[in-house]
Amino acid sequence: MKTNTGRFFEDYFIGQVIDHACPRTIGAGERALYHALYPSRHALYSSDAFAQSCGLQFSPIDDLIVFHVVFGKSVPDISINAVANLGYAEARWLEPVYPGDTLSSRSTVVGVKQNSSGKTGVVWVRTEGFNQEEKMVISFIRWVMVRKKDPLETSTETVVPILKDIVSAADLTVPINLNFDSYSTVLSGSSYKISDYKVGEIIDHADGTTITESEHMMATRLWQNTAKVHFDSTLRPDGKRLIYGGHIISMARALSFNGLENMQMIAAINAGAHVNPCFADDTIYAWSEVLDLAETAKPSIGAIRLRLVATKGQAGLLHDKNGKYNSAVLLDLDYWAFAPS
Amino acid sequence: MKTNTGRFFEDYFIGQVIDHACPRTIGAGERALYHALYPSRHALYSSDAFAQSCGLQFSPIDDLIVFHVVFGKSVPDISINAVANLGYAEARWLEPVYPGDTLSSRSTVVGVKQNSSGKTGVVWVRTEGFNQEEKMVISFIRWVMVRKKDPLETSTETVVPILKDIVSAADLTVPINLNFDSYSTVLSGSSYKISDYKVGEIIDHADGTTITESEHMMATRLWQNTAKVHFDSTLRPDGKRLIYGGHIISMARALSFNGLENMQMIAAINAGAHVNPCFADDTIYAWSEVLDLAETAKPSIGAIRLRLVATKGQAGLLHDKNGKYNSAVLLDLDYWAFAPS
Amino acid sequence: MKTNTGRFFEDYFIGQVIDHACPRTIGAGERALYHALYPSRHALYSSDAFAQSCGLQFSPIDDLIVFHVVFGKSVPDISINAVANLGYAEARWLEPVYPGDTLSSRSTVVGVKQNSSGKTGVVWVRTEGFNQEEKMVISFIRWVMVRKKDPLETSTETVVPILKDIVSAADLTVPINLNFDSYSTVLSGSSYKISDYKVGEIIDHADGTTITESEHMMATRLWQNTAKVHFDSTLRPDGKRLIYGGHIISMARALSFNGLENMQMIAAINAGAHVNPCFADDTIYAWSEVLDLAETAKPSIGAIRLRLVATKGQAGLLHDKNGKYNSAVLLDLDYWAFAPS
Repeated sequence: MKTNTGRFFEDYFIGQVIDHACPRTIGAGERALYHALYPSRHALYSSDAFAQSCGLQFSPIDDLIVFHVVFGKSVPDISINAVANLGYAEARWLEPVYPGDTLSSRSTVVGVKQNSSGKTGVVWVRTEGFNQEEKMVISFIRWVMVRKKDPLETSTETVVPILKDIVSAADLTVPINLNFDSYSTVLSGSSYKISDYKVGEIIDHADGTTITESEHMMATRLWQNTAKVHFDSTLRPDGKRLIYGGHIISMARALSFNGLENMQMIAAINAGAHVNPCFADDTIYAWSEVLDLAETAKPSIGAIRLRLVATKGQAGLLHDKNGKYNSAVLLDLDYWAFAPS
Repeated sequence: MKTNTGRFFEDYFIGQVIDHACPRTIGAGERALYHALYPSRHALYSSDAFAQSCGLQFSPIDDLIVFHVVFGKSVPDISINAVANLGYAEARWLEPVYPGDTLSSRSTVVGVKQNSSGKTGVVWVRTEGFNQEEKMVISFIRWVMVRKKDPLETSTETVVPILKDIVSAADLTVPINLNFDSYSTVLSGSSYKISDYKVGEIIDHADGTTITESEHMMATRLWQNTAKVHFDSTLRPDGKRLIYGGHIISMARALSFNGLENMQMIAAINAGAHVNPCFADDTIYAWSEVLDLAETAKPSIGAIRLRLVATKGQAGLLHDKNGKYNSAVLLDLDYWAFAPS
Repeated sequence: MKTNTGRFFEDYFIGQVIDHACPRTIGAGERALYHALYPSRHALYSSDAFAQSCGLQFSPIDDLIVFHVVFGKSVPDISINAVANLGYAEARWLEPVYPGDTLSSRSTVVGVKQNSSGKTGVVWVRTEGFNQEEKMVISFIRWVMVRKKDPLETSTETVVPILKDIVSAADLTVPINLNFDSYSTVLSGSSYKISDYKVGEIIDHADGTTITESEHMMATRLWQNTAKVHFDSTLRPDGKRLIYGGHIISMARALSFNGLENMQMIAAINAGAHVNPCFADDTIYAWSEVLDLAETAKPSIGAIRLRLVATKGQAGLLHDKNGKYNSAVLLDLDYWAFAPS
């Protein structure tokens, strides 16, 4: 069998390093498609001239493109047989990516634990993305539930990694030349800087987008993510294609522009959960909550920690009376962004 | 409230200058997407080699991309609360835009008039687009009907600007290096030059395109146009998304290649009306009428004034017996183009 | 009538040379769209760094983009009145195409034969694509059934060209600087080189993709292919848009990555048949059969001849008991690829 059928739970072991295939050069085309697929409007990712006014050479490739591409390369090796994507932690952006850069991706197994059913296990990996100069541009941990080949054989190795609940503000990496000294809030679209936000503040992003099959499939393919459920309508009894969770992250982040116009750069993802599945014809809305504010080493640049929630239809309460997520909630993402202080 | 809810009629005053947010670098990606979204085939916008044979450095960015991007930036400030886009006038293209150029957009209020209902008013703005060298690349007037915040308060200021019915041929700007001295009608796709067209001549463009939700949303997002009705299927009782009028302009212009192959460059829009709304699954056809012919300062380049009409389904008569537009008419656009004389 | 209505059977004669309109510059945008429309993952077309490790300047434009663009330009002159695309032969790729290259297209009529009905005839053309330096980058023969203008007039000229059943391995053109001396099978995604495949071996590519209207229309427009049936849902009684056969070729080739990861470069198409029509909502799968293996002048590069079959729904038998294609078969393509030996 030359067709790749992917790894099963038994195929993973602590310390295993997997270099993922298909390095990918990212350029002006991916950037334009991102703007066609999401209502993305942060000025730093829209205009070379604006990026140059912030000390960068060019407008960098959107941070979530970098995440999706590095994640996508890991899918055939990590999650092609996954039953579920369980979570993210300790995602940090380390270096801006520019048009023409080539990204490659590598994962190291940092946790394994068989489930009590014997049919599946949980695998934790640290995935790292590199540019063509071997500089690490992103690093994140994710964990997935993977099928076992043989339910009768029991795995003895159990390692559950200790993960940071949040990336501390001190561990965020401000790009070396970035500064917001001569930042234009006219061009960015809002006068609200970090100092105008308060912890606990909720921002309703107001706009909604109805999802289509073509768009989510084009996005998912663009990141060379090969998980079958996103593309093949015959795999589910209801004939629906399950939408890649990253499509919802990007859609929610883009919708959040309205109210968070100056939260330019994603610095870290602390945690993320795809709470409910999303399908074509669902209409997505988003709201944010300010979780924390912090300084960086550069006086003009602050950090803001945000909860970004995406919902199907207009948002109601996040949780039901039993403390569980309401069925309309799609995404609960906890991240840090850089913004003018 | 940090979310932008847009301006209402009372927020506009004569002479008000609004610098729009989100400058945008346009490149090879937007160009490719334009070719994927519209059956665009004019050789000057398809081939660097052809553009160089016409004296330009590279194939410029399509004139309507420039229009859509500059227009799109104005939406959050001008028309997010608009009840209707009422018209365009005096649109002039002043400078070609090339891949890598960054566009920004500014509007000046040139007219305000409260409607008799007291609930809405009409606002006229002159919107200007600039490249990264602050050169003006496009200028146009549009007017919209905007909601009032308070129907009981009456606005006293009324200014209705005097608009030119048509941009005169003498006011068209031929790009400085453009010439059609060694223009190849083999490569352009037709031997019919300006001298082969007669005023009053009608050209049926024959081809039709059925519209999809994904394509019109991708196009509209690509221009960072944020008007909600284009994206959110829950806003109308019939569950339909209203298609951005500019999508129909681009579709009709691209369809008009068949019969107007040499009408390379849009020089001006004299007037434009979105006569009826368009929705996904409508099939769009187009026809043109030659309205005028003119010389330019360059002997090899002529100007042709065209009426471009887009219809749902095959075109019948433009007007009904009462002189009103037939319900199948979507667009009635009056524009000037440059072509080999 | 200035609208192009295309040529009819009587308009073709042996030796006729037709230079097609609309030269086209291909760049980073087309490349990104190709990755969004197809699950394409061959490393040589994904990464500049990988391509450089194989001796090329940059990652070349996908071979099938070159085919589609050169083919698309021929549509208005050759097949706009075609009843059917009957076949391909002797397609050879002669020179890699890089972002920024401009492609033009020319066809020479090499065969004409009236059908016995008198209503149609078959036309064979050799179509050649050139870059901006007038180097030939691709050459192929295709034949189509075209309507006659006048069924009563009989054409006397009959020439049926003698076509090669297959392009011989000795006639394949290895790009001048290409070498697989330091080829990384980790980055390519599979350790199986040409020496690991056997003639007669069947590879099931496992993954399926459900087709959408937007995606096939965007792809077909991107190649400036203007055949009406792909875009206008009113042309068929069932309201369906017929999907461009090339969309299925690209989809099947991209799906074939899973199991043929190292078959990087298409060198030739020996034969191809679009066996049954494809419509939106069909789910496409693919399988391949190894037909031949050959050496090239470069020891690190081998050639592999493959049959690529695309099916609607999971593949059953290729032929029914009468030796006819089963109704689920969409494409039967016979091609050569270059791969590490």
